[in-house]
Amino acid sequence: MRDLMLELDPEETGAEMFRFMKELFPICRSITGDGIRETLHRIGERIPLELHEVPTGTQVFDWTVPKEWNIRDAYIEDPNGRRVVDLADSNLHVVGYSVPVDTRMPLSQLREHIHTLPEQPDLIPYRTSYYSETWGFCMAQEEFQALEDGEYVVRIDSSLEPGSLTYGECYLPGETEDEVLISCHCCHPSLANDNLSGIALATRLAEHLRGLSLRYSYRFLFIPGTIGSIVWLAHNEDRISRVENGLVVTCVGDAGQLTYKRSRRGDALVDRAAEHVLRHSGQSYRVVDFSPYGYDERQYCSPGFDLAVGSLTRTPHHEYPEYHTSADNLDLVRPEALADSLGLYLRVLDVLENDATHVNLYPKGEPQLGKRGLYPPIGGQGAGTDLMARLWVLNLSDGRSTLLTIAERSGMPFAAIRGAAQALLDGGLLETTAPASSPPSDGPKGW
Amino acid sequence: MRDLMLELDPEETGAEMFRFMKELFPICRSITGDGIRETLHRIGERIPLELHEVPTGTQVFDWTVPKEWNIRDAYIEDPNGRRVVDLADSNLHVVGYSVPVDTRMPLSQLREHIHTLPEQPDLIPYRTSYYSETWGFCMAQEEFQALEDGEYVVRIDSSLEPGSLTYGECYLPGETEDEVLISCHCCHPSLANDNLSGIALATRLAEHLRGLSLRYSYRFLFIPGTIGSIVWLAHNEDRISRVENGLVVTCVGDAGQLTYKRSRRGDALVDRAAEHVLRHSGQSYRVVDFSPYGYDERQYCSPGFDLAVGSLTRTPHHEYPEYHTSADNLDLVRPEALADSLGLYLRVLDVLENDATHVNLYPKGEPQLGKRGLYPPIGGQGAGTDLMARLWVLNLSDGRSTLLTIAERSGMPFAAIRGAAQALLDGGLLETTAPASSPPSDGPKGW
Amino acid sequence: MRDLMLELDPEETGAEMFRFMKELFPICRSITGDGIRETLHRIGERIPLELHEVPTGTQVFDWTVPKEWNIRDAYIEDPNGRRVVDLADSNLHVVGYSVPVDTRMPLSQLREHIHTLPEQPDLIPYRTSYYSETWGFCMAQEEFQALEDGEYVVRIDSSLEPGSLTYGECYLPGETEDEVLISCHCCHPSLANDNLSGIALATRLAEHLRGLSLRYSYRFLFIPGTIGSIVWLAHNEDRISRVENGLVVTCVGDAGQLTYKRSRRGDALVDRAAEHVLRHSGQSYRVVDFSPYGYDERQYCSPGFDLAVGSLTRTPHHEYPEYHTSADNLDLVRPEALADSLGLYLRVLDVLENDATHVNLYPKGEPQLGKRGLYPPIGGQGAGTDLMARLWVLNLSDGRSTLLTIAERSGMPFAAIRGAAQALLDGGLLETTAPASSPPSDGPKGW
Repeated sequence: MRDLMLELDPEETGAEMFRFMKELFPICRSITGDGIRETLHRIGERIPLELHEVPTGTQVFDWTVPKEWNIRDAYIEDPNGRRVVDLADSNLHVVGYSVPVDTRMPLSQLREHIHTLPEQPDLIPYRTSYYSETWGFCMAQEEFQALEDGEYVVRIDSSLEPGSLTYGECYLPGETEDEVLISCHCCHPSLANDNLSGIALATRLAEHLRGLSLRYSYRFLFIPGTIGSIVWLAHNEDRISRVENGLVVTCVGDAGQLTYKRSRRGDALVDRAAEHVLRHSGQSYRVVDFSPYGYDERQYCSPGFDLAVGSLTRTPHHEYPEYHTSADNLDLVRPEALADSLGLYLRVLDVLENDATHVNLYPKGEPQLGKRGLYPPIGGQGAGTDLMARLWVLNLSDGRSTLLTIAERSGMPFAAIRGAAQALLDGGLLETTAPASSPPSDGPKGW
Repeated sequence: MRDLMLELDPEETGAEMFRFMKELFPICRSITGDGIRETLHRIGERIPLELHEVPTGTQVFDWTVPKEWNIRDAYIEDPNGRRVVDLADSNLHVVGYSVPVDTRMPLSQLREHIHTLPEQPDLIPYRTSYYSETWGFCMAQEEFQALEDGEYVVRIDSSLEPGSLTYGECYLPGETEDEVLISCHCCHPSLANDNLSGIALATRLAEHLRGLSLRYSYRFLFIPGTIGSIVWLAHNEDRISRVENGLVVTCVGDAGQLTYKRSRRGDALVDRAAEHVLRHSGQSYRVVDFSPYGYDERQYCSPGFDLAVGSLTRTPHHEYPEYHTSADNLDLVRPEALADSLGLYLRVLDVLENDATHVNLYPKGEPQLGKRGLYPPIGGQGAGTDLMARLWVLNLSDGRSTLLTIAERSGMPFAAIRGAAQALLDGGLLETTAPASSPPSDGPKGW
Repeated sequence: MRDLMLELDPEETGAEMFRFMKELFPICRSITGDGIRETLHRIGERIPLELHEVPTGTQVFDWTVPKEWNIRDAYIEDPNGRRVVDLADSNLHVVGYSVPVDTRMPLSQLREHIHTLPEQPDLIPYRTSYYSETWGFCMAQEEFQALEDGEYVVRIDSSLEPGSLTYGECYLPGETEDEVLISCHCCHPSLANDNLSGIALATRLAEHLRGLSLRYSYRFLFIPGTIGSIVWLAHNEDRISRVENGLVVTCVGDAGQLTYKRSRRGDALVDRAAEHVLRHSGQSYRVVDFSPYGYDERQYCSPGFDLAVGSLTRTPHHEYPEYHTSADNLDLVRPEALADSLGLYLRVLDVLENDATHVNLYPKGEPQLGKRGLYPPIGGQGAGTDLMARLWVLNLSDGRSTLLTIAERSGMPFAAIRGAAQALLDGGLLETTAPASSPPSDGPKGW
C-alpha cells in the first residue's frame, strides 16, 4: 500500500506555503490578463504546469470567453488634488473588469460608481463586473463618507480587448488513468484566504505527490472561477468520465472550523473519505450537503457532469466576516492552519489511494492468528487496537466491503485498518480483489 | 403553473366558515336520518352536491347499511315531574341510535342507561350505539349525582326503521381524471370542532377550487363516519385507482397545534407535501405516522385499498379535553384558526397541482444567467433567495427530481422553487417532462 | 400459536439456576480435560446431552485440536516453606494450560511467571496460554509485593498430552428442521458470571423448551470457547444452513444493564426480536452493533458463515470490573437477575416461534368487528389496547408484514399483537400465510 503521509515537517511546510502566498499577494489578478498569467508563471516555477490560452470569443457551452482585461492604474482625485482612492494602495480599489475612464465629475455622480460596506465601514469590498461593461471603485465606507462635495478626477487606465483567458494544468500520471481532480481558482486579486491559500496548498500538494508512485493520476487545475472550469469542462468532455474524485481547494488558511462540502452525489468515495478523515482529525468540523452556490464545484457538479467533486475548506465563503474584503489579507492566514489543511488533504488522498476490497482467505471461523504471531500468546486479557483492526478486516473482508467501509463500521481510523490489512496480506491471510471506486453517478446519464 | 393561493381574505373567510358552522350546529345529526339530510341540503346550497340515498340492508363489503334513525324528542322526568334531561337542551343528551322508549322505572334501573364523564363532571358525553340496539341518555356527572331516588318517566320518541343512508358528493373535474379526495364526516350532532369545522372547511375549499382551472379532479365526500366511506368505497371500486392523493378533514378550528397524520404508505406525495407545507408554515406542528384508528382514513388506508390519504388537523381527536363532549361547541372554534387551516390545505394542494419534473436544457456547467437578466451584474456579493432557488432548480432538474424534491433538498419553500422554475421555463432554460405522482402502493396488489 | 411464557416461578427458577452454578463453581475447567468433562456430565443429568470427544491433532479449518490438559496440584512455597500460592485455594492461581513444573528458583526468576492486576491489587487475574507452551501463576498484586527474596519451590502437577476435546450438544427437535442455536462456553474455571451463569441459563432453557411443542428445532452447544465453536462448525458444515437464528449466552447473572449485541447481519430476525423484547422490557438496556471480538459469535459470524447469531447479556465482558478476576464469583450473581434473563430469552424465542405473515381476509375497509364481539358496542369513546392491536393486525396483514413488523410499527408489545392475531384467526378474519424468517445473508455466498 502507498503511504502518502511521508514525513512533512508541518512547521516548515506551513511556513513555505505562507511565503508563496506572500509572493503572490501583490499581483493584481482577474479572470483574464497579466495578473493571472504572472501567477501561473510563479506556480510553474514549482511544479510542471501546462499553460492554456483560450481566445476571447471562444464558445464554451452556454458561455463565451470574455475579452481580456488588464489594468495599469486607477485613482480618484478630490477637488484638492488629493488621491482619495488609488489602485497602488490596494488592488481591491477598482471594480474588476472596469472599462477605461478618464474624466471629471461631481461627487453626486461619482457616488453611483462607488461600492462600500456600510456595516464594515473600515474595509474595502471586493467587487467585479465581468459580464456587464461598467466601471467602479471600492473603498471604505468611512473614507467615502469623508469625501467633500466638488469636482473629482476619475481615471481608470485599463484595457478590455480581445485577448485570451489563461489557465494552468498540472497532470501527474499514476498507475491508472482514473483521475483525481484538484481545482482552485486563481482570479482573486490580493485576497489571502480566498484564494491564495488554495493556490499555495494545491501547489505544495502537487510538489509532494510528484515524488510518489500513485494509483490515481492527479490533475491540478489553476483556473479563473466559473468561466475557467466551464472552459476546462467544455474542452475536455471526452475525458471527463475519468475523473473519479475531486476536491475544490479554497479558504484553507484561516483558523476556523474545518468544513467539508459534499459533492452533489453525496455518497461518492471522496465524500466518505473526507468525512472519515475529519471524524478522526481530533478537530471540530462540519460536513455540509452540496448546494449549487460556492466555487467551481458548481460547474463540476452541474447535472450534465455530476462529478464526484467536493470541497474541503476551513471556514467557508460568506461565513467569515473578512470574506471578499480587504481584511482577507495575510494577517488572516496562519502557517499552521495551512500545514494542517495540507495534512488533511493528504489523509483524504491516502484513503482514495489505498481503499480496496479484499477477501479473507480463511473465512470459516477466525484463522489462527496466534501461530502467525498476530495474536497475544497469553489469553484472558482484552484486545488492543492492532488486534481489533485485524479482526475487523478479517471479519468484513468478504469481497464487498472496502477498507474504508471497514473503517467506518469499526469506528477505527483508516490508517489502523490499512495497517492491519497490510499485516494480513503479508501473513497470507488476505487477498486484494479490487480497488475501490465511487458508485456511478445517476446524473449525467441520458444527457 | 397554477397558483391556488389566490387572494382569500383570511378574516372574511374565517368569519364566513364560522357562520356556516353556526348555522349547522343546532341540527341533530347521526349516521342516517333527517339531520344529515338537512346538513347536506345546506352544503348543497353552496356547492354542487350530488346526494346519494343507499337503502337500509344494502350489503357493502363486510357491512350492511343500517336502519334509518330519526329522533323527535327525548327526556327524563324525575319523581317531581321535572325534566332533568331534555333533548331540547342538547342533542348530546340521547345516545345516538337509541330505540324508542316510553316507560317509567326506578332510578336504580335507569342508571344503567345513563352515560356520564366522572372526570369532567360538568360535561355531557357524546355516545352512540349504531350497531347494537339499545337506548340511553348522556348527562353531566354532577347532575346525575343530584338525582333523587324514585320513579322516573323515560321517553325517547325515535324511530329506527328501514330507510336509507344519505351522503353527498361534489366532483370538480380537472384536466386529468386523477383525483384528489377530500373527505369529511357529517354524522356528529352539535359538535363543533369535530366535525362542523371540517364540513365548513371542505365546503369553502370546494367553493374556492370551483373557480380555478386545475390539473387534478377533486372529489369531496360528505359522509357519515365509517359506514359512509365503506359505502363509497364499495360503490366505486372500479374508479378508486384514480385517487392519487387525499385528505380527511376534521378538527380544523381549534387553537391547537397543527398535526399531519401520514397515510399508511407514509411517503405518498400528499404526505411529503403536507409535511413540507407545515415545515414552512412558521407554526409549531407535528407529523405523526399512520395508525389504524381515527376517522375515515381507516377505511381509505385499509390494506385492500391503501390509498394515499392522510389527515391534516389541528389538535387530533382524543387529545383535546373537549373532544366528544358538550364542550366541543362553537366557543372552542376560532374563525382565524379555520382560515389558517384553509390556507394550509390550499398550500398542500398547490404542491400537488404544481409538482412536476423538469429537465435543465443547459445541464453542462451553469447556463449563463447574467445574459438573461437572471444573475446580478455586480459579482463578489452573495446569492439572494431568488438566485439560490434558480440555481437549485437548474442543478437538480435532471429529469428525476420533482420541484417538491428540490424544495425538500434545498430547504426552500415550495413557492420559491415553483417561482424559480417558472422564471427558468420563461427563460427557455427548462422543460417540463412530467407531473409528479405518488409512488405506487405496494398494498392492494394481490387482493 | 405457541406460548413459551408458561408459568415459571421467577423466584424458584432463579434459585434453582443459582444452585446449579454453585454446584459447578468448584470444578477446575479448561478448554479440554476432566474439568469440562465433569461439567458436561452434570449438565447431562438435567437435559439430554450428546457428548463429543474430538482427538488431539484433529484439523478443523485453520486450527488443530490441542493436547488435553489436566491439572492435579499447583503451588509455590516461599523460602520459609509456606505455600504462598495454592491451586487448592483458587482455580485461578494457575495459568490455564501450564506445562508441568517441579523446580526451585529465586524470586527474581519466578517473577516472570507471575501475573497480577496492579490496578486491582486484591484480585487474582484469570490467564491462559492454550496455544503457546509455557507455565505461570496468577495472584493478587498485594500478595505478590509481600513476597520476600529467596529460593522458592515451584510445582505444577499438570499433564499436557494427546487426548481429546470434549463438548456437549443437546438437540430438541421441533416441527421443522430450521434451527435456533443456543451456545455457551464452558471452559472457564471458577468464574461465575462468565460463564457459569450462561451454562445455568442454557441448561434451564433447554429443560423448559423440552416440554413444549415448538416450530423450530433447538440446538444447545456447551463448548470450550473459540476452538469449540470452530470444531462444531467444521464438523457440521453441511447442516449449518439450517441455523436460522442463534444466541450466545454469557454474563446473564449480574445486576447490570441488559445488552444485546447484534449479529453481523444486524437485521436478522433474532436481532429484531431481541431489540423489540428489550424495548418492552421496562428495563434500561443497550443494543450494540456486532464487533468481531467477544465470545463464540466471532466464529458463528465469521464471513464464511455469517450466521444470524447475536448475544443477549447483562453487562458485557470487559465492562464490569470483576470480569476475568477472582471477584467474578458467586457473590456477583443474583438469582433474580438469572430469572429475569431467562424470561427475556423466552420472550425472544416467543417472537421467533410465533412471528408469521398473515392475510386479512376482509381487506377492503375494516371488517365489521362489532358483529363478532370484537368492538365495543357503545361508540364515542377511545380504543383500548386490545382493539388497537386488532386494528393494527388487520391493517398491516397484507401478506408482507409479519407480526413482529406490526409490533414494531405499532409500538405495541409482541404479545399484544400475537394475542390480537389469535383472536382474529379465531374469528375467521385472518389467515396465516407463512412463518417469518431472517433475510438471507449476503455473506457466505461465493465462499
